[in-house]
Amino acid sequence: MTQFIGVSEMSKLVRKVGVLDFLRDLAGYIEEDFRRWPLFEKAARVASHSKVGVIELMPTSDGALYGFKYVNGHPGNTATGKLTVTGFGVLADVATGYPMLITEMTLLTALRTAATSAMAARALARRDSKVMAMIGAGAQSEFQVLAFKALLGIEEVRIYDPDRAAVQKFMANAQTFGLKVTRAETISEGVAGADIVTTATAVKGRAAVITPEMLSPGTHINAIGGDCPGKTELHADVLRMGKVFVEYPPQTRIEGEIQQVEPDFPVTELWQVLSGAAVGRAAKDEITIFDSVGFAVEDFSALRFVRDLTLARSTELDLIPEVANPKDLFGPLLRTAPARVVRPDTDRISA
Amino acid sequence: MTQFIGVSEMSKLVRKVGVLDFLRDLAGYIEEDFRRWPLFEKAARVASHSKVGVIELMPTSDGALYGFKYVNGHPGNTATGKLTVTGFGVLADVATGYPMLITEMTLLTALRTAATSAMAARALARRDSKVMAMIGAGAQSEFQVLAFKALLGIEEVRIYDPDRAAVQKFMANAQTFGLKVTRAETISEGVAGADIVTTATAVKGRAAVITPEMLSPGTHINAIGGDCPGKTELHADVLRMGKVFVEYPPQTRIEGEIQQVEPDFPVTELWQVLSGAAVGRAAKDEITIFDSVGFAVEDFSALRFVRDLTLARSTELDLIPEVANPKDLFGPLLRTAPARVVRPDTDRISA
Repeated sequence: MTQFIGVSEMSKLVRKVGVLDFLRDLAGYIEEDFRRWPLFEKAARVASHSKVGVIELMPTSDGALYGFKYVNGHPGNTATGKLTVTGFGVLADVATGYPMLITEMTLLTALRTAATSAMAARALARRDSKVMAMIGAGAQSEFQVLAFKALLGIEEVRIYDPDRAAVQKFMANAQTFGLKVTRAETISEGVAGADIVTTATAVKGRAAVITPEMLSPGTHINAIGGDCPGKTELHADVLRMGKVFVEYPPQTRIEGEIQQVEPDFPVTELWQVLSGAAVGRAAKDEITIFDSVGFAVEDFSALRFVRDLTLARSTELDLIPEVANPKDLFGPLLRTAPARVVRPDTDRISA
Repeated sequence: MTQFIGVSEMSKLVRKVGVLDFLRDLAGYIEEDFRRWPLFEKAARVASHSKVGVIELMPTSDGALYGFKYVNGHPGNTATGKLTVTGFGVLADVATGYPMLITEMTLLTALRTAATSAMAARALARRDSKVMAMIGAGAQSEFQVLAFKALLGIEEVRIYDPDRAAVQKFMANAQTFGLKVTRAETISEGVAGADIVTTATAVKGRAAVITPEMLSPGTHINAIGGDCPGKTELHADVLRMGKVFVEYPPQTRIEGEIQQVEPDFPVTELWQVLSGAAVGRAAKDEITIFDSVGFAVEDFSALRFVRDLTLARSTELDLIPEVANPKDLFGPLLRTAPARVVRPDTDRISA
């Protein structure tokens, strides 16, 4: 049987574990996979574009497990009360090819994106970081600040978004976790003196949400909103002020902030910092920039984490036939009595 | 909510519709999609290879619907009572990117493969075809002969397989459908004078299951067992005796029978015959050969067919969040009371 984790089950699971613990433990799985990065099969995502959006499949494998995420991006969805980005994922056993787990990944992607940001910051930001500027109060914003609280001990958050209702939503959600949250009237006000600056905006085109004069020495920038060709959040000169870290250069050079600069602009791969092969932050005054676009390995880690959390406790789907004779697929269909394809001793959703 | 069709639900559905009607109607959907072939986005399948098998994703879209199939191939699985090939599929709405249907596709692939074979034969075989040789009594064999009965009115089947138990299984399954089934002691005996010859064997490497001297003029050959690089069933000279029809040349030249011959060996695309743009069988005495490897559009048609059959009657999964505010994903996770993510007026699998 294949395990299934729907939205309500995922939601319950996160609340049961506690969102801070969930983010911290998930970051541990992601870091573990980044440390064995060369092991992973890294394929390009397979995109199907239409006039209104894109549907992508993002597969990867470590040789023992295979995972993929289905994810869509439809900016017009919000007009009808739907989400711009949703997703689900599958984890399978490489030895048999059988799928083991199907799970919602809309919430899980929000969690893994935040966990990845904080994991990167744990390696790159100053150890005494306490103040975070959160630029953008969209669906990802609360996940971000909670991950930074869980992994780095951030105490104070300054939130900026031109959408007042979004800021109020953010403050209501984030304040219950004991963070000091203040509203910034401008981006400059939010960023001034902050130890960590996270940009997660929905700006379109080549924006310059963050410009060089806003920044103090020693800041860590976590840029997650620029994640497709033609969409960037940082002024190009910001990239030249510090040291840029990326997930997977071939993808980031197309989708990330560094699409604005020359194709051989120097970057450091995050996995090399985490595995000790490259230097992260070299000095207290250095500006570090994580130019994050999201990568299949992070989804793989999230699938692996959820499978370990939910082993034998989730709903089961009869997605794959159980057969007595592998040469006889037809027999069960022919019988007049219903074929026995689910085990009687487990939960089942169809008789 | 996302519809779910598991193995037991699919099995019930096929029995309810009746397997012959199911195959005939499914063939109608496949033919409809072949006739609008140029509309489809045709991407290469995305394969992840390991030492013991392969896992593939096969996506396609007609601009309104998007579908993909997950399929594995693990020859060693039968040693532990598992199937060599299993699969599941997803159909999504291009307009929103939301998945509409997740279904098992192990049974459904067997059905669509047979329906495709018979649909091709309806266009290519002699109209008076009554006798079929079935070479190979594996998991696909019963589906094949029933599809040919449903679409072409085949009355007599000669079955050949060196595995006696497999032949017995085939006969027990197929005879209940009013077909005259006889066992052939050799391939030549089965093929001699048959109107249609279907090869669906598990032979490895470059086999020559069918050789030129076995064949009578006017035979239609339906070759479905050779479907990956290095695996073929027909002697190369058989291909030169007749006219070869294929699904998608770039894929068939790598995976099909024609991998044995020169790269510019002349072939006709089946969709062109079905849409009237190319000639199929030109004479009663001609040998026609359908060199079939399976293609994503056939899975797409099958997904579309199953969706239309099961609309509003299947199990529902809460795979995608329903949100009041697209900018607030976090809120539902924070609430102490369980978030309401499933509609109360529909079936649900988790509260």
